[in-house]
Amino acid sequence: MPEPKTFHMTPDEFRRHGRAVVDWIADYYERIESFPVLSQVKPGEIRASLPPRPPDVGEPFDSVLADLENLILPGITHWQSPNFFAYFPANASGPAILGDLLSSGLGVQGMLWSTSPACTELETHVLDWLVEMLGLPQKFLSSTEGGGVIQDTASSAVLCALLAARERAIHSAPTQEKWNGKLVVYTSAQAHSSIEKAVKIAGMGSENLRLIEVDENFAMRPEALLRQIEADRQAGLTPCFACATVGTTSSNAMDPIREIGCICRENKIWLHVDAAMSGTAALCPEFRWIQDGVEFADSYCFNPHKWMFTNFDCSCFYVADRAALVRTLSILPEYLRNQATDSGAVIDYRDWHIPLGRRFRSLKLWFVIRHYGIEGLQFHIRRHVELTQQFAHWVKEDRRFELAAPAPLNLVCFRHKSGDEANQQIMDRLNRNGDLYLTHTKLNGKLTLRFCVGQTNTEARHVAQAWKRIQEEAESLQS
Amino acid sequence: MPEPKTFHMTPDEFRRHGRAVVDWIADYYERIESFPVLSQVKPGEIRASLPPRPPDVGEPFDSVLADLENLILPGITHWQSPNFFAYFPANASGPAILGDLLSSGLGVQGMLWSTSPACTELETHVLDWLVEMLGLPQKFLSSTEGGGVIQDTASSAVLCALLAARERAIHSAPTQEKWNGKLVVYTSAQAHSSIEKAVKIAGMGSENLRLIEVDENFAMRPEALLRQIEADRQAGLTPCFACATVGTTSSNAMDPIREIGCICRENKIWLHVDAAMSGTAALCPEFRWIQDGVEFADSYCFNPHKWMFTNFDCSCFYVADRAALVRTLSILPEYLRNQATDSGAVIDYRDWHIPLGRRFRSLKLWFVIRHYGIEGLQFHIRRHVELTQQFAHWVKEDRRFELAAPAPLNLVCFRHKSGDEANQQIMDRLNRNGDLYLTHTKLNGKLTLRFCVGQTNTEARHVAQAWKRIQEEAESLQS
Repeated sequence: MPEPKTFHMTPDEFRRHGRAVVDWIADYYERIESFPVLSQVKPGEIRASLPPRPPDVGEPFDSVLADLENLILPGITHWQSPNFFAYFPANASGPAILGDLLSSGLGVQGMLWSTSPACTELETHVLDWLVEMLGLPQKFLSSTEGGGVIQDTASSAVLCALLAARERAIHSAPTQEKWNGKLVVYTSAQAHSSIEKAVKIAGMGSENLRLIEVDENFAMRPEALLRQIEADRQAGLTPCFACATVGTTSSNAMDPIREIGCICRENKIWLHVDAAMSGTAALCPEFRWIQDGVEFADSYCFNPHKWMFTNFDCSCFYVADRAALVRTLSILPEYLRNQATDSGAVIDYRDWHIPLGRRFRSLKLWFVIRHYGIEGLQFHIRRHVELTQQFAHWVKEDRRFELAAPAPLNLVCFRHKSGDEANQQIMDRLNRNGDLYLTHTKLNGKLTLRFCVGQTNTEARHVAQAWKRIQEEAESLQS
Repeated sequence: MPEPKTFHMTPDEFRRHGRAVVDWIADYYERIESFPVLSQVKPGEIRASLPPRPPDVGEPFDSVLADLENLILPGITHWQSPNFFAYFPANASGPAILGDLLSSGLGVQGMLWSTSPACTELETHVLDWLVEMLGLPQKFLSSTEGGGVIQDTASSAVLCALLAARERAIHSAPTQEKWNGKLVVYTSAQAHSSIEKAVKIAGMGSENLRLIEVDENFAMRPEALLRQIEADRQAGLTPCFACATVGTTSSNAMDPIREIGCICRENKIWLHVDAAMSGTAALCPEFRWIQDGVEFADSYCFNPHKWMFTNFDCSCFYVADRAALVRTLSILPEYLRNQATDSGAVIDYRDWHIPLGRRFRSLKLWFVIRHYGIEGLQFHIRRHVELTQQFAHWVKEDRRFELAAPAPLNLVCFRHKSGDEANQQIMDRLNRNGDLYLTHTKLNGKLTLRFCVGQTNTEARHVAQAWKRIQEEAESLQS
């Protein structure tokens, strides 16, 4: 008698299809340079190729995989191409992908220690490792009153930091009147949009966000911050939270954390340091100057899913005082109560972020650190910085171009001297052509091209070829 | 000459290690019933087995995989065991795991349409499919003013719904004074803790959250809701947002959405329907009564990562009016501007949720729907409900036990009649023993056992064995 139909994929089928998928991914990386980096489809084109109705009965796995190849791939912008120089990297690597696969396979929930102790403890452990690896202050270690947690993104991390700061401000106010809903938030005019988003989400009012002016290098002016704080105090407002950036998204500007930190400490302002992409550079001692003064920070965040070969999502968030964070986000209904939580001996990470459920994300980070070792990670960060500096050098040497900002690490902001239209044309042509992908920003009101090196497999030849192509487009501009 | 050392995992190494990981997962599912479902480790035990310092040099992949087996596995609570009946399911399946693996491999960012058009369009497409599959109102289709998006969890979804409601309330207020920060939020006393968490995050004040009383079946009393709304209006407050639950976490109670919806509509209150686990049941027409009245909802959420064989995270969130949501969450800095966004012809999902970056999560959902087809999904949902009803029947037939609440779908709340201590003892013994895992809640102040069926591979024999074990513990209680 035949087995009754179960519809499930059996373990043996999983082995077979799993191998096919692993091979597909390996093949993908081997042929990735053959695709245009930026997808060339038009809005609606991918949807139009998909059947309008969901399938009534199941389909063979092979047809699904074939459709991925034929229908989905044309709509992919290849973030893992070594010719991807746009936005920021979101780099992946073999060990990360396989660690993440194990997380999917185990399918555990890490909302409480007790719902999978290893999920919580490995996360705490690896985040402690990173404190040492990056030279961060000891107060971020889990053995202190602080500690680290993996968030999905730096946007969520800054929101949590802001909520904890709000909690601390309200909690420490002698009377309700003292703050009266008028908490003020400070960041630079070049900071990431996620800070404004967080202020809006937290209901603190966009009108209470101060975008502090920047200097000629696009870094926050501490004296302008101080002036604004004093003005706000005089206006009866309560300065509450500041976000300093280690490597702004637009131009990789480095806010002077030490000076900002001193001002924040004197004014009892929560200092959050957002080092989303550039924080990874601190793996190398010679780049640790970027975080000089980080000991003043109440919270800190960097994203291994940007530049540390760990596929999205994996943003590491540290606080010096976990109590403020947990007080804001903790709600303990009966159905989540358990002995371990009641004992107070464990961390329940659900109280450290917005969602309740959580994935076993530390696995992929653990796999990456163990695969590369500190040595391997440092090697590639140094290599990316070196390639970027080479590119910056070429730009400087070419009379048609100019650097638009300092290039301290792995991002070059530059422009053709002929103005916005020329730069737009160079960018559009390169991106339409598909050999490489780069994006833009505006600095001092001028359209500026951004060239960011950080994809896992980017090598000297890719950067050299990119510069050659940029030069060619500059040529054809003149013709 | 030897190749210079790159530290990266080559495509060929990825093939080899990838196969090992796929086999490890297949083996894991084949032997999963041999593990105690609830991890038996003590706090700190897993960490103590890990090296205190990160590795200076890289390690072979095989040792990492061996450590997963030897050091991590003992700290795993096996959510994918067919003997897992705790909390709620967070079920996974072969096609989901492989779809997710492809998402890791492609490593694209879906924050904007242009950063990978297929990532946005497949998501929109599959979420439209689900509107049809679940019999949801047409206003949630992307072809209308509404549409769907994948969030990480129902907690984030309800936060987004609340923010959109707050935006609409402020936006539509003729004067600032009209609402004056005094927006009121309604949900039942049995609703999920995420609603209170959202209210706190949004800075709307826990004191403005009303937990409406429930009836004898733990469902919200509409007349009590109406009374409270009127009292709040008379007190000069502005009713803003209500969350009705299709299947509460505690006892699977079904709030009467139609009656609540009528009240909300008359009072211009945003109605969010949280169907996190139970929503999946609507795949079967005979269970659609649970969402009767959902056409009154302004937003709706259910989690394929609970009961629809799609591994975490995957929470589907729909709004009837996307403008309110996007207005709240949209901030467009220069470095994210692009032609497609400016044209208005595309969806940029970054404006539909808290984070900026986003993973290609629709791939796994697409794989699941195509692998099972509507037929296969319905088959398993029906089977889970049938097994649960069998269990409820056994409870009713046993004089020592009683049902503590109606069991409409896949959750049975029951208790031993001897009181809290007996129930605690039964639960602790079962969980310590490891044959199965179940958790508790409190209903009418009494400790109540929860038995939730929904893991992918749970079959009749697992449920029968669980009931046998529960009976045995009840026996030993009496001896």
